Amino acid sequence: MTSAAAQTFRTTRRVEFSDTDAAGIAHFTAFFRWMEQAEHELLRSLGLSVFMSVGGREITWPRVNSKCDFRSMAKFEETLEIAVTISRLGEKSVTWSFQFTIGSSDVASGEITAVCCEVGEGGSLASTPIPTVFLTKLRPFLTPNS
Amino acid sequence: MTSAAAQTFRTTRRVEFSDTDAAGIAHFTAFFRWMEQAEHELLRSLGLSVFMSVGGREITWPRVNSKCDFRSMAKFEETLEIAVTISRLGEKSVTWSFQFTIGSSDVASGEITAVCCEVGEGGSLASTPIPTVFLTKLRPFLTPNS
Amino acid sequence: MTSAAAQTFRTTRRVEFSDTDAAGIAHFTAFFRWMEQAEHELLRSLGLSVFMSVGGREITWPRVNSKCDFRSMAKFEETLEIAVTISRLGEKSVTWSFQFTIGSSDVASGEITAVCCEVGEGGSLASTPIPTVFLTKLRPFLTPNS
Amino acid sequence: MTSAAAQTFRTTRRVEFSDTDAAGIAHFTAFFRWMEQAEHELLRSLGLSVFMSVGGREITWPRVNSKCDFRSMAKFEETLEIAVTISRLGEKSVTWSFQFTIGSSDVASGEITAVCCEVGEGGSLASTPIPTVFLTKLRPFLTPNS
Repeated sequence: MTSAAAQTFRTTRRVEFSDTDAAGIAHFTAFFRWMEQAEHELLRSLGLSVFMSVGGREITWPRVNSKCDFRSMAKFEETLEIAVTISRLGEKSVTWSFQFTIGSSDVASGEITAVCCEVGEGGSLASTPIPTVFLTKLRPFLTPNS
Repeated sequence: MTSAAAQTFRTTRRVEFSDTDAAGIAHFTAFFRWMEQAEHELLRSLGLSVFMSVGGREITWPRVNSKCDFRSMAKFEETLEIAVTISRLGEKSVTWSFQFTIGSSDVASGEITAVCCEVGEGGSLASTPIPTVFLTKLRPFLTPNS
Repeated sequence: MTSAAAQTFRTTRRVEFSDTDAAGIAHFTAFFRWMEQAEHELLRSLGLSVFMSVGGREITWPRVNSKCDFRSMAKFEETLEIAVTISRLGEKSVTWSFQFTIGSSDVASGEITAVCCEVGEGGSLASTPIPTVFLTKLRPFLTPNS
Repeated sequence: MTSAAAQTFRTTRRVEFSDTDAAGIAHFTAFFRWMEQAEHELLRSLGLSVFMSVGGREITWPRVNSKCDFRSMAKFEETLEIAVTISRLGEKSVTWSFQFTIGSSDVASGEITAVCCEVGEGGSLASTPIPTVFLTKLRPFLTPNS
């Protein structure tokens, strides 16, 4: 039995001066911004959006968890390569997985878990099964056996 | 003819590590955040808010201009004193004025001009005369002859 | 066998407008900034700093991991209460633990793990045993059995 | 006598979710970050950097003033086109000028004035004449008669 390799979405981010801190490196919070930006960029590449009307329902994806491990430093003007896959695709939630590298250097890796929600009256949010249009387009990014 | 001295609102902000950059000082964009925070804190101290229902109308204050002069550096963990006055109070707009000091050191000064708007259908904004409740409470902060 | 209750450091942060996002709530990255700010504030309350000269050595604390669980939303101008303890105090690293509440509402909880490092030539960092002055002052915040 | 049109540097920035605020639009401070990012990107395109060793001297460019006029709103996922020119090129300082548009819509325009400084002992900064390598490469971006 073979298991197809997951599809990987790749993007880059340059360390901007406003991302750095007085230790001379990208502040750790910048990685969380970059993770979310890469998630949204992947969705756009599929014709989707993190805020989207699907069959008359307004769908959005609040974050319920995020984490990141930092292994080496990223300096001003360096370019980070970001590889995005999905480590879990549940009925109502998705866990995005991100690998940050600079050249051959392993810089950081992290996750965001987002829950599929329908926006109701007055902006209230209720979790809801992930619409088929999302499931179909996201499944190729699911890492096998993860 | 006498001219009453303007009332001044005073608050402080500490330079947090996430405010600093690789030059070892508060990044210049932090001052714009602090100006807005001081404006909002002044409004709260008067029982007002930058988003507020007045006589059934939703009033808010989009920014149309902001500027800041930087004269000396603010370092990690230093505490900035911020003095807020109003340099112009028009029929539909207000120009907030901010002085940043650290001890006796003049650090920066800036302005934000915000226009009084009513929120309409679908979030549209239309400029509107400043409600009396704002005018009455803001006028004491207007700098004489400014 | 008795187990002393951990000491808890408490501080607050107001949700500033610049912390919010288009979903109308505090953006998830704000919680990571607030965790670090609370860590630094705790250190200052003990006469310590995250950048500090100890016995002629420059000591600092790069982050190697951070995570946060989000359980409810924090809105503009709400005040978050932040409770800080230590869930692990190793020979060379510390894991800070943070609980965010608004009134009786459980909003979020997270961790930052930082490694004690000595700053060397040209800003290089090498992990080093936590100096006694830190160990002594941090130990009361260590959660029993954690 | 004719006057050559200034060269214009063009780049883009997408409004990321972390740039937005609870009013549903890009927060005004995002424009100041984007201005600086565009300045740095222009410098890189010329083989220069905002932190650079020139003839054995460390040259950097602290900001002494920045301002921005906001004319229309930028929403999540919209792409801003940024046009950069120089409105003043003095002996020791440069004033960068930025125009933000979305399609045919005029969104904002702003300036950053930066002073050429030499980094001395302990990170001290002293203003210094702009090195020839900068002057030569920046002059084409100077707006005529500005």
